[in-house]
Amino acid sequence: MSQLIILPDTEYGIRLGNIQRALSAQHIDAALITDNANKYYITGRVFSGSAYIPAEGMPIFFVRRPVGLEGDGVIYVRKPEEMAASIGLNMPHVIGLELDVTPYSTAERLKKIFSSSDMANVSKIMSQIRSVKTDYEIELIRQSGVKHERVYRRIPHIFRSGMTDIEFQIEIERISRLEGCLGQFRISGNSMELFMGNILTGKNADNPTPYDFAMGGEGIDPSLPVGANGSVIRPGETIMVDLNGNYTGYMTDMTRTFSLGNVEPLASKAHECSIAICHEIAKTARQGMEAKALYELAEKIVAEHDLHAYFMGHRQKAGFIGHGVGIEINEAPVIAPRSRDILAIGNVVALEPKFVIPGVGAVGIENTYVLTADGLTSLTNAPEQLINLE
Amino acid sequence: MSQLIILPDTEYGIRLGNIQRALSAQHIDAALITDNANKYYITGRVFSGSAYIPAEGMPIFFVRRPVGLEGDGVIYVRKPEEMAASIGLNMPHVIGLELDVTPYSTAERLKKIFSSSDMANVSKIMSQIRSVKTDYEIELIRQSGVKHERVYRRIPHIFRSGMTDIEFQIEIERISRLEGCLGQFRISGNSMELFMGNILTGKNADNPTPYDFAMGGEGIDPSLPVGANGSVIRPGETIMVDLNGNYTGYMTDMTRTFSLGNVEPLASKAHECSIAICHEIAKTARQGMEAKALYELAEKIVAEHDLHAYFMGHRQKAGFIGHGVGIEINEAPVIAPRSRDILAIGNVVALEPKFVIPGVGAVGIENTYVLTADGLTSLTNAPEQLINLE
Repeated sequence: MSQLIILPDTEYGIRLGNIQRALSAQHIDAALITDNANKYYITGRVFSGSAYIPAEGMPIFFVRRPVGLEGDGVIYVRKPEEMAASIGLNMPHVIGLELDVTPYSTAERLKKIFSSSDMANVSKIMSQIRSVKTDYEIELIRQSGVKHERVYRRIPHIFRSGMTDIEFQIEIERISRLEGCLGQFRISGNSMELFMGNILTGKNADNPTPYDFAMGGEGIDPSLPVGANGSVIRPGETIMVDLNGNYTGYMTDMTRTFSLGNVEPLASKAHECSIAICHEIAKTARQGMEAKALYELAEKIVAEHDLHAYFMGHRQKAGFIGHGVGIEINEAPVIAPRSRDILAIGNVVALEPKFVIPGVGAVGIENTYVLTADGLTSLTNAPEQLINLE
Repeated sequence: MSQLIILPDTEYGIRLGNIQRALSAQHIDAALITDNANKYYITGRVFSGSAYIPAEGMPIFFVRRPVGLEGDGVIYVRKPEEMAASIGLNMPHVIGLELDVTPYSTAERLKKIFSSSDMANVSKIMSQIRSVKTDYEIELIRQSGVKHERVYRRIPHIFRSGMTDIEFQIEIERISRLEGCLGQFRISGNSMELFMGNILTGKNADNPTPYDFAMGGEGIDPSLPVGANGSVIRPGETIMVDLNGNYTGYMTDMTRTFSLGNVEPLASKAHECSIAICHEIAKTARQGMEAKALYELAEKIVAEHDLHAYFMGHRQKAGFIGHGVGIEINEAPVIAPRSRDILAIGNVVALEPKFVIPGVGAVGIENTYVLTADGLTSLTNAPEQLINLE
């Protein structure tokens, strides 16, 4: 037997308290949490089943699998309909479900179980709470950043002349896995897909993808049209490496750009501009600011450098320069022109102001930052300059 | 510019015809397909947007990304609400949505766009159609099987004494990726997660997971509790390898078991029993049979060998011995006691009658088969015997 809750008591208390206060504030009597990322947030582990969190009182954990879990409120059920008996007379007037991710059929099934309750959507509540990381979470992200950096520092040493982008990627994947990378790349929602990360060289950087990532690439098969496409890495071209930083269940997101020999001045200039944008935003960001103000600051710097045509893509442009990161890669806040997010201390944000230079490749950097009272502090500290692999 | 439809014309015609006939039969006037796996099935590529398939007439492809697609019926939209203008006066009386995978909020948004239509669930229709593979699809699965086999034949040569399970896995991942494995492991629904596959050795094979996979394992982090856990591979123990076979957008699923030195007779006996079950089911299966009959046949053979205590797990047991496979790992038909699936020619099914022997590890094999008029033909032909790595 092992305890279902594997977070330290105080940490569990903080997270549960945050959720219960948010439910109370929105007059939701209880939330039924079924999403793996949210269950992991609440308990420190993934299990099959659901966490029933009342706005007041003790949670109930309805577990289907694995066998052998115990602790306060743990009840084994074979199907969701068995939950009703345990909730009994305390049926909530308003039940919160994660309606942005729960499939329609599943939500309809749960509606029947809570047939006397009104239904509310707690997806935004959970996303809002998870966007402000606790010290415990920041420490896990920091640990991921340390390992992520260790891998990136070794990248120049594993390049061999004549490699394709995918061959290079496979060797980086290997050292990353040996360093402890879990591989799993959690993305909220069904629409985005990526395996381990995105490595782009030369012309392929300008190939558009269907996914909402900052950069594109054709991929090696139309079933997964993103990233490396088997291009040989050629002199005068850049290689942008944006690889999975999930070492602890919490991810860092980091991009570095390499070149094979010298690249044209436009590419170097754009890379320096990316570094400048990151540093400027890191200095400027404060709690209470609108996230979109950071996007506007980036656009202003890009305009000053006359690089707009290449910013965030060339044939196809991404609509954001940054995003929250933690258990999943697409968390709040979003740094985009129409974002309504307001910055808060404890936000962990990846900034990725990137450029695509036709014929050369992608340039720019990405760091993962935590917002403190003094601005953004980087948790991903590999060297930022364009590194020549020759 | 490139054509949105990248399937050959005849293949596209077959798939579209199958969907349109099924919609007509169920009196659904049109389906709006948004799931990546289903869009890939219909067009041969993944795109952001949706495929509007009327029961009669020409489909419309509403594309958000990537830029540069063209062809009959291709219309670029920025948001789903723009679809209404193109469908115009032909609004369907009944609109089919993929309600088993579409998030509740998304379905509600689509409901408003089709406010004059009744809503039907086409998830089962699509799953049923996709469970009967076309010759074109079977060829892609066969190609995956050939590469998958090539990788598995090399496994004994990359083992080094003293390796942990995860170190062994990383080296197999590497040769698999170099052979062309796409990495992406598509699973329908939100609840199951796996990175590249499951390698189990010794006691870890008996650790239960929250996921609905045939086998378990603790994993290396509670955020992804499945598979290898860093155990050193020891003499007298088995190593079961069940690794991603997605080389073409279509997967094969194959498991082979290795041992370090000799293992106790019970483990060898159970391994032979797994092989016997696969061979017997392959000979017996015919179109029109109930899928559950294959499960019962497996149980009968297990009982004859007195191995029930170890079958499909020991501390925790899986409830199935086989599953359809193709674009996703959890397709129809399901080979389980309460399955209602009926076998059809063109089904592609992975059979994985496995055993967990306490203290030794997991044993057994898994092959991916296609159902023909003569029974199941294996598409995964690496040697099936227990292979000694010493």
